Amino acid sequence: MDEVLIGLQREVAAALKSRDLTALSGLLAAQDASVIMRLLEREGSADRAVLYRLLGRDAALEVFELLDPGMRIELFQGLRDEDVARVFEQLDPDDRAQLVDELPAGVAQKLMRGLSPRERELTAPILGYPRSSIGRYMSTEFVRLQPQLTLGDALSHVRHRNAEAETVYILPVTDGARRVQGVVELRELVMGRSDARVEDVMGEARVVQATEDAEVAARRVVDSRLLAVPVVDSESRLVGLLTVDDAARILEDAEDEDAARQGASEPLRRPYLSTSVLGIVRSRVLWLLVLAISALLTVQVLGFFEATLEEVVTLALFVPLLTGTAGNTGAQAATTVTRALAMGEVAARDVLRVAWREVRVGAILGGLLGMLGLVLAGLVFGIRFGLVIGITLFAICTLAACVGGVMPMLARAVRADPAVFSTPFISTFCDATSLILYFLVATWVLGL
Amino acid sequence: MDEVLIGLQREVAAALKSRDLTALSGLLAAQDASVIMRLLEREGSADRAVLYRLLGRDAALEVFELLDPGMRIELFQGLRDEDVARVFEQLDPDDRAQLVDELPAGVAQKLMRGLSPRERELTAPILGYPRSSIGRYMSTEFVRLQPQLTLGDALSHVRHRNAEAETVYILPVTDGARRVQGVVELRELVMGRSDARVEDVMGEARVVQATEDAEVAARRVVDSRLLAVPVVDSESRLVGLLTVDDAARILEDAEDEDAARQGASEPLRRPYLSTSVLGIVRSRVLWLLVLAISALLTVQVLGFFEATLEEVVTLALFVPLLTGTAGNTGAQAATTVTRALAMGEVAARDVLRVAWREVRVGAILGGLLGMLGLVLAGLVFGIRFGLVIGITLFAICTLAACVGGVMPMLARAVRADPAVFSTPFISTFCDATSLILYFLVATWVLGL
Repeated sequence: MDEVLIGLQREVAAALKSRDLTALSGLLAAQDASVIMRLLEREGSADRAVLYRLLGRDAALEVFELLDPGMRIELFQGLRDEDVARVFEQLDPDDRAQLVDELPAGVAQKLMRGLSPRERELTAPILGYPRSSIGRYMSTEFVRLQPQLTLGDALSHVRHRNAEAETVYILPVTDGARRVQGVVELRELVMGRSDARVEDVMGEARVVQATEDAEVAARRVVDSRLLAVPVVDSESRLVGLLTVDDAARILEDAEDEDAARQGASEPLRRPYLSTSVLGIVRSRVLWLLVLAISALLTVQVLGFFEATLEEVVTLALFVPLLTGTAGNTGAQAATTVTRALAMGEVAARDVLRVAWREVRVGAILGGLLGMLGLVLAGLVFGIRFGLVIGITLFAICTLAACVGGVMPMLARAVRADPAVFSTPFISTFCDATSLILYFLVATWVLGL
Repeated sequence: MDEVLIGLQREVAAALKSRDLTALSGLLAAQDASVIMRLLEREGSADRAVLYRLLGRDAALEVFELLDPGMRIELFQGLRDEDVARVFEQLDPDDRAQLVDELPAGVAQKLMRGLSPRERELTAPILGYPRSSIGRYMSTEFVRLQPQLTLGDALSHVRHRNAEAETVYILPVTDGARRVQGVVELRELVMGRSDARVEDVMGEARVVQATEDAEVAARRVVDSRLLAVPVVDSESRLVGLLTVDDAARILEDAEDEDAARQGASEPLRRPYLSTSVLGIVRSRVLWLLVLAISALLTVQVLGFFEATLEEVVTLALFVPLLTGTAGNTGAQAATTVTRALAMGEVAARDVLRVAWREVRVGAILGGLLGMLGLVLAGLVFGIRFGLVIGITLFAICTLAACVGGVMPMLARAVRADPAVFSTPFISTFCDATSLILYFLVATWVLGL
């Protein structure tokens, strides 16, 4: 796969250089949509537009559906006018709704008006749900069955409606008021006796609410090993279907965001190599500034203890080691708890249980590190100094683990993204606190 | 969902307290497998064993399949002897293979010998592939078709073999030598004319090699929006099928590991609340020690410049701010690049391209922060001191971004996990380097 891509990239580069469009078309036509997607991800935006326009109609649509939202919008805006409406009409309703979110309002409205009535009808409900809700990601192209149908009739109904549906492997069963009664797998329709009734073979439906948080709902679908789950409105009426592959992609995006926040930046909207240098700077500069300004706190703390520092300059030598250890301990706790929150393993109300676990974990880690610090620092700088380092390490590890564990829980409690109070933020907070502890311990033990 | 769980947990706690096993059985029997899974995840290991034994046979198996590997092994080892062989026989072959990996070799061999010949035959090929390869996760229970079959015959073949297969929605088509010719969706079999031939409707098969890295292969399946992909051996012969839901779960585990490494710990093998305090300590202590010992480098650097520090104690005030900023900048770059590597957006050979991007990004960020530092520090401590802080910030941001971007690439190049050279490791490295830069700039500008 990777070799195919490297070879293709080389040939494409040569053809682009000599502006040989016929050769380029030929090269692209021979490739899988997923290979072309990878290729486009690695090109600059000018070449990307050229290459995309050379794709055949079907290939262009197939590649479009595989791309990240950020690249979709760029390519879409670069399309020739006559192609815009056609591509828009052919997209799946959920992909179309996501594009509408990104387009300027005027353009989006014009495109929506240009849609065929059927496609507009499939897209409108999706756009009615809040942006982070699962309603935005559901498929509205599905086939539903009535419970009284025989399996034979149900199968011919599915045959008839097949072309309209995104999936026919999971078929929701509804009553007259569109309320979900259960689900049937296509497998059961095909395998069952054709005079049996749908209600006899249908399984209990696990459903998700359309207004539910997209990440939570998606994780439930992936964890439950189902191919698709019906999406219902507040009155339990069927409005869509969430498929496992859409759920997997929602989780992938959520991981992207968590990983970026954990590293003190915002997620890039498109692949790394196709993001401009300034785009990368934009994703990082705000967090870096916020953290640097918070770090001014450490300057003040040290300024407050400047006289002590002048008296015993040796104290300064251990500052990066101590703040670093506090930051690492806090980051460990924060990462574990943030992940547990994302996986639904702990909830906001578990905050005290988590705090108590982390205090114990921190105390054990701090005890181990503290003893090591006592011995090492004691050997080089004397036993009293060793005591200062040992006691400080014990105290800051206990504190940092507790703070690191609790902060993401608090974020969740106020409905913010737990990953915002992440590694770097907690590190900075722990830096200042650990310095205060350090100097308090030092003045006490050394009798300053 | 969450309310159901909270209510259930309360009732279960009450029934456990009064040891009312009949009430407990009743409570559990009324619940979905996924709710019971969540409940077990939140209980201590003694209560968990009690609850699990109260489940009916079918429910016990269903819940077992939903659990994390760490909890599976614990529950499995707690089963009554008469149940062990039965559960083992009923597991899917890929789940069984994972269990075999975790069990003591003697126990695993005995269990494998006790399997029915058919199940043993389905499990053995999985165990033949390396642990991190996709062969370990593939399903060996599938239905394959011959290209010359008519759709009608193919459908009755599927009907006949249905019970044996994990999925029948994607059907690999093979020639006499089991080489993959294409794939057919069940949908096409059902919808097509029954006298058409399989070879006329089958699509081109995208396949994965059984020895390929599990995460890479899984990401390809999720990204390509396919329900399942055939897995082949080195001679292109069909050996299994990788379904999208298995792929999604592989990615979830990989994210777990990346997130943990990013936060300087090892992933927990089971949910947070059901891991013991000592288990959490174990997942963190090694990394914390390694990082603390690396941080001794910063003590040495500062010790080397101790005379300078004694002369100008004010220099000490900025140490945490500077090391913190270097760490944050390095972490930003490392996180972005690690993620891009995991997503397949960049490859090891892009190292120079990445380095050059990160140098520019770092220089811009450093320029901005440096100007801010110059002004702020200049106002409080005088223009010369402001210059020291400004120049140092520029230099360390440039260096840290470059180091943070390149380290994960180097890890990948030597086939290590890029997430190992993660945030905390890079922070520690940047701490020491930024201190050296700081004192060099200071001695130069202040003429010490």
